Amino acid sequence: MSESVVQNYTVEGMTCGHCAASVTEELEEIDGVVAVEVDVTTGSVTVTSEQPLAEADVQAAVVEAGYRVV
Amino acid sequence: MSESVVQNYTVEGMTCGHCAASVTEELEEIDGVVAVEVDVTTGSVTVTSEQPLAEADVQAAVVEAGYRVV
Repeated sequence: MSESVVQNYTVEGMTCGHCAASVTEELEEIDGVVAVEVDVTTGSVTVTSEQPLAEADVQAAVVEAGYRVV
Repeated sequence: MSESVVQNYTVEGMTCGHCAASVTEELEEIDGVVAVEVDVTTGSVTVTSEQPLAEADVQAAVVEAGYRVV
């Protein structure tokens, strides 16, 4: 049986579904990420992964999408 | 010498650059459109075309992108 790691972040600057899609797409490229959920209204981003992620990788993915983890 | 038609519309609901890109992309698919300029802050969309466009085509393109001409 495999366990998942669920981690929540707050991302600043997302205003619409396109923003959510951009952030989701970049985060899903990180090795081990199996799911991403974004709530644009609150900036809440929940990442589910097969193993703990390096914070730097998560932050870099969000920046790559054009946003910032706060 | 060829003349261009420049028409301005106000589009509701665009919040970011992705929204602007979606609207621009759909409008550029209309036959004769040579340029689209979007100001997300005001909702102003300026379409330059080789000949006058059918209003229905413009509205349909904006709706296809997920927004509405007001």
